[in-house]
Amino acid sequence: MTAAAIDLGSYLARRKALVEEALDRFVSPAGGAPPRIIAAVRYSLFAGGKRLRPILCLAAAEAVSDAWESALPCACALEMIHTYSLIHDDLPAMDDDDYRRGRPTNHIVFGEGLAILAGDALLTEAFHLLADPGLMPGVTPETRLEVLRLVAGAAGMTGMVGGQVMDLEGEGETLAALTDMHRRKTGALLTASVVAGAVIAGASPAQRDILTRYGRKIGLAFQIADDILNVTGDSARMGKSTGSDAVRGKKTFPSLLGLEASRLKLAELVDGAAADARQLGDSSGILVQIADYIRERNI
Amino acid sequence: MTAAAIDLGSYLARRKALVEEALDRFVSPAGGAPPRIIAAVRYSLFAGGKRLRPILCLAAAEAVSDAWESALPCACALEMIHTYSLIHDDLPAMDDDDYRRGRPTNHIVFGEGLAILAGDALLTEAFHLLADPGLMPGVTPETRLEVLRLVAGAAGMTGMVGGQVMDLEGEGETLAALTDMHRRKTGALLTASVVAGAVIAGASPAQRDILTRYGRKIGLAFQIADDILNVTGDSARMGKSTGSDAVRGKKTFPSLLGLEASRLKLAELVDGAAADARQLGDSSGILVQIADYIRERNI
Repeated sequence: MTAAAIDLGSYLARRKALVEEALDRFVSPAGGAPPRIIAAVRYSLFAGGKRLRPILCLAAAEAVSDAWESALPCACALEMIHTYSLIHDDLPAMDDDDYRRGRPTNHIVFGEGLAILAGDALLTEAFHLLADPGLMPGVTPETRLEVLRLVAGAAGMTGMVGGQVMDLEGEGETLAALTDMHRRKTGALLTASVVAGAVIAGASPAQRDILTRYGRKIGLAFQIADDILNVTGDSARMGKSTGSDAVRGKKTFPSLLGLEASRLKLAELVDGAAADARQLGDSSGILVQIADYIRERNI
Repeated sequence: MTAAAIDLGSYLARRKALVEEALDRFVSPAGGAPPRIIAAVRYSLFAGGKRLRPILCLAAAEAVSDAWESALPCACALEMIHTYSLIHDDLPAMDDDDYRRGRPTNHIVFGEGLAILAGDALLTEAFHLLADPGLMPGVTPETRLEVLRLVAGAAGMTGMVGGQVMDLEGEGETLAALTDMHRRKTGALLTASVVAGAVIAGASPAQRDILTRYGRKIGLAFQIADDILNVTGDSARMGKSTGSDAVRGKKTFPSLLGLEASRLKLAELVDGAAADARQLGDSSGILVQIADYIRERNI
């Protein structure tokens, strides 16, 4: 199937449904955990996320092999880690957000203590899932450990947690610092999503390198698109108030670089990512389209 | 070497030094994370812990095989997970403790936001460490995944996080509920420490079963000893004020069972654990002594 033959909207809807059905199974009320923590975890896990990270993971696996469904547990683990990071980022001691995607945040509904624990649970259960011997048939233990290490590295203190620390400490005052912060905070897990999918599907070193470059570009593009939309977008589409970065005095790509230069940088990254993906041949058509989709931050 | 030949105090001091030297290497300022998160993580990681979990992990490995040093990275990961749980438990939204082991708690020194992230970082880095292919030579990838799954299961929402949820929700009003809460909150990770060490060292199914029973008993014994000491102990030894459970209105084994019956239950568990360990022969002498040591809650 060539890139042009696939309708992106229907592809995304199908993958989203697949991921949500799997998440529903993996984070089940039947597991023996106290009911309140399951409720808190599931509240945020099923709060209308776009499932970008799992979809990227599956699309990267599909670009490499027909056996892409082996990456489904990993795709779910990535969404669980992403969801934990949102719950903790929204806490009063962090960004202090009462709403996300138009719904009250976890700590507003369940209280701060349970929200912290819901994040802790999602992070821990993500690794529990990645180590489940009954899942990912055909994937060697060596590969599973490699994926686990890659995901933990991206989520840890040199990656996502480190980026959130920089954000909390008010770093990102210069373009270099802002770029470093976003590469850690958002870029690391997005890149890991792409690379993990590829590794599970048995990517060659060359394919892996190409997809790492693709992942880094769309990771940063995603954040720049978000910043631009925060200036120019409508709040219904964002699920949060526009102009909120400016109100908080947060530095953004538009505030440091200007709106026009930010758009050019975004285009350069997205075009570069699409060119990377094209090197993998027809099987990467969806990755090309996702890069383009991020340009408009529709995802 | 027989049990009687080993001086427990000197054994514990040697193992503690070994674990701390390894933790210092594994959680290093040279890793590329923002300096503030490294400072926050190391503040709690080197706050005078007894290193019970890592020592149990190493002692269980030693009971099974001479190649017990392979368990050192896992021992460190367990201490990192334990430390994360202490940082999060101390937060204002949880137990709201300003002091631990006589020092200001993490959020008092670094602020709530950074304390939450320090816990998140320790949890994530623990799994990153367990998946490091350069460590634990001679241990198969299958065994490493098994250990990782075991540790994540013990730390997750059916285990430690679930126990903290029950504590936060004020459960544990009956003896059955209190026992269930402590089995999750403290017992699960203590048991996993013992079993993980044994699995890394290549324990047979029979050895593993024995050590699982040992771990469960000392896990509960540890909590009962803690409760008794909270009533009868001196605060200098506890590092926190005695009688604090009663002040908070928290149910404990002495408050539900009476002091004398609690002491009997503690003795029964410790004697049972020592009997379990003895089934493994002379190599488990240290495990026998540690069980006895917990009776006095000296550890």
